[in-house]
Amino acid sequence: MLRHIIESQQFNVPFIMELFESAQRMEKIFHRGGTQDYSNKIMASLFYEPSTRTRFSFETAMYRLGGKVISTENAKEFSSAISGESIEDTIKVLNHFVDVVVIRHNEIGGAKRAAQVSKIPIINAGDGKGGQHPTQALTDLYTIYREIKTIDGLNIALVGDLAHGRTIRSLAYLLSKFERVKIFFVAPDALQIHQDICEHLEENDIWYTKENSIHKIINQVDVVYQTRIEKEKLNSSDNEYSNLMKEFYIDRNVINHLKQNAIIMHPLPRLNEISSEVDNDPRAAYFRQAQNGIFVRMALLAYLLDRY
Amino acid sequence: MLRHIIESQQFNVPFIMELFESAQRMEKIFHRGGTQDYSNKIMASLFYEPSTRTRFSFETAMYRLGGKVISTENAKEFSSAISGESIEDTIKVLNHFVDVVVIRHNEIGGAKRAAQVSKIPIINAGDGKGGQHPTQALTDLYTIYREIKTIDGLNIALVGDLAHGRTIRSLAYLLSKFERVKIFFVAPDALQIHQDICEHLEENDIWYTKENSIHKIINQVDVVYQTRIEKEKLNSSDNEYSNLMKEFYIDRNVINHLKQNAIIMHPLPRLNEISSEVDNDPRAAYFRQAQNGIFVRMALLAYLLDRY
Amino acid sequence: MLRHIIESQQFNVPFIMELFESAQRMEKIFHRGGTQDYSNKIMASLFYEPSTRTRFSFETAMYRLGGKVISTENAKEFSSAISGESIEDTIKVLNHFVDVVVIRHNEIGGAKRAAQVSKIPIINAGDGKGGQHPTQALTDLYTIYREIKTIDGLNIALVGDLAHGRTIRSLAYLLSKFERVKIFFVAPDALQIHQDICEHLEENDIWYTKENSIHKIINQVDVVYQTRIEKEKLNSSDNEYSNLMKEFYIDRNVINHLKQNAIIMHPLPRLNEISSEVDNDPRAAYFRQAQNGIFVRMALLAYLLDRY
Repeated sequence: MLRHIIESQQFNVPFIMELFESAQRMEKIFHRGGTQDYSNKIMASLFYEPSTRTRFSFETAMYRLGGKVISTENAKEFSSAISGESIEDTIKVLNHFVDVVVIRHNEIGGAKRAAQVSKIPIINAGDGKGGQHPTQALTDLYTIYREIKTIDGLNIALVGDLAHGRTIRSLAYLLSKFERVKIFFVAPDALQIHQDICEHLEENDIWYTKENSIHKIINQVDVVYQTRIEKEKLNSSDNEYSNLMKEFYIDRNVINHLKQNAIIMHPLPRLNEISSEVDNDPRAAYFRQAQNGIFVRMALLAYLLDRY
Repeated sequence: MLRHIIESQQFNVPFIMELFESAQRMEKIFHRGGTQDYSNKIMASLFYEPSTRTRFSFETAMYRLGGKVISTENAKEFSSAISGESIEDTIKVLNHFVDVVVIRHNEIGGAKRAAQVSKIPIINAGDGKGGQHPTQALTDLYTIYREIKTIDGLNIALVGDLAHGRTIRSLAYLLSKFERVKIFFVAPDALQIHQDICEHLEENDIWYTKENSIHKIINQVDVVYQTRIEKEKLNSSDNEYSNLMKEFYIDRNVINHLKQNAIIMHPLPRLNEISSEVDNDPRAAYFRQAQNGIFVRMALLAYLLDRY
Repeated sequence: MLRHIIESQQFNVPFIMELFESAQRMEKIFHRGGTQDYSNKIMASLFYEPSTRTRFSFETAMYRLGGKVISTENAKEFSSAISGESIEDTIKVLNHFVDVVVIRHNEIGGAKRAAQVSKIPIINAGDGKGGQHPTQALTDLYTIYREIKTIDGLNIALVGDLAHGRTIRSLAYLLSKFERVKIFFVAPDALQIHQDICEHLEENDIWYTKENSIHKIINQVDVVYQTRIEKEKLNSSDNEYSNLMKEFYIDRNVINHLKQNAIIMHPLPRLNEISSEVDNDPRAAYFRQAQNGIFVRMALLAYLLDRY
């Protein structure tokens, strides 16, 4: 039983499956206009740095459960009071105000420090550049499960900047808990997946390969998970960059080779790595993925609020 | 039937009259403390630049309808995520979160782009410096209708910076849809109304005149709509500016010449173009005008939420 | 009967005692999950400068009463509209929107100016550096009353920067209304309590003394109210500062000398003037004090909303 949601390593398959069943119930509740079951609960959105998308997702989830929200968009810049004090003190005070805290911190480990002093549940909504974002990882995994009905046995391409993307790293980690999954890491050499993840997969007997073009594997996979490649990460000229990007860019031509029942995912925001002409293809799952974030967060909030 | 509220040109007289009847019902509901009829609806306030007054007006309207609100005060500065992505993608995601989006964008056409990809209603809360602010225009027109019971046949003075004020332009446009309206454009030469509006009025057989002093016409009009004249717009010395302002400034002496049943309007914020000694005169309608914004926005939100 | 809550001087003992009884009822309501009694009321949080803690406290209080909140975190920086206009005009408009306004203004007297033009209740949530923060003062006094069941006859140490702390000044003022209170002002000479407060206490026959070490008086007092001493206020070297701080710092050794039924208070945020090893001592009341702020604000909001 989890009190706080801090990092993907906390989740085992039974917890994940229970959560996904709840998320599917939440989807029905959402489409009926929500519930009032949590109308006497208050969530604090404590965002030390702004992330409007993630904040809106949590706040929508809480409102669809009937709850209330107090919110700060940019605590680090805004409040000399809060930023001058330790995160521990801030959390101890909020323990006396609200029922659950969603925290986005600018330092790795911020959410964990918050959890260590908190009797009410803490949910990590992203901590630092290389930190965790566990509700995004659960949303990604739920999207695969929701769209394809299984995770076991799937061929999954993780594409883009695999060196820096925390989304990708967390998802690879969660996938390793399932059976007969095959992972295709598709990235420029400079941005390939780090060795720690490879070792983790090997320990869990997960098959993987490293590729540097999407074209070679596009017809073999059930899931294409695309992410951004930022030019600044590559130290390349404009010309080299646009040549390189041809190996990763997804447009109508590319998805012509994609299986009929496969899906295309993206954590959003997208820059230009998926052509908007792909949006109307039924296999384009990235906007449904954003909505699944609501269902997963509703399920998580209900799970925590029911228990504490 | 309107799905989105983007620009004043969308409104015809039957729509306007239906909306005004609804706004009058909303006024009664407001004074009874609101309704819970929309308690399962969520509005997103997506303000790319801050406009606290307008945001508060929409959020109050939504709360008085029983609904919920997720809100960002300053998306452009706050969220690299949202600002780095296209407005189309942001709106596509919000379509899966909420029931209606109120958008204040920093570029002309921002709201229109949002509407083009949106299945849920989009309301333009101002786009860019020279853009539209259609709910303000409806509020202004409703205030005249609410205070004088008619719009047909009225003599209306539009005063101040007529060259830059989007409020004035939108209102002139809406007034042209009514019968026997006479418009007095009262402004320094450098800030007079632009030719495009004059041509539009001529096409619609609306009588108008251009004046450069309020004193000459103050006793002839049913409505004085005052706006700000900013010194920087005039390239004049302090002395010239304060001499010029005497022709437009409204104080107790000026309104001594105003008809007993006339009204004084102002979109607010006011700087110094109406003396505060005028505030307690029953003809000073500008604070009631601000409140009418709530009723009009409640009526618009209900109209859109009932249909989509 | 108070319409607005602007400064501590407004409160007499009967009002304070009535409020404290209400706050104790609110505590029970809070722990039952709140009430819906004020579900048709809206509070505006009008913060011209950010103060996340205070804003969260008021917004939590309003939500626990069932009400709704419109909120701006940083009106001064955000809204050229609101900041360009007089606070009087802003308040006159909000009178037509909401039921109560909580204002944090950056200038002394801001809340008072707001109240002068307002028919709906205004609550001062802090105005300017040397201004008032009356709900903090009531919270502090309520904490003493709640923890020790009386205020009359107590020995109270006010410790730290007594020259600049508005909290301390307001509390000393309120304490002077009670019987047989003894006050120990414990501060470095440069930061001792100002003469105006001393004179006020003398006029009210309140015993006080000035000390420059906490060690000398720690075993005599029922309440230790600790506040921050900022190095910049002292013009001292690092070495001098840390030597000086030994006379005011509270750790386990210090509270070994504190009476068994005494309490330790702090308005928070804390920097380093109370060791975190003290937090788990039952006499450490500062986090309960933060929670008492919710109950006092619930009681104040209910008091004002019931009457206007």
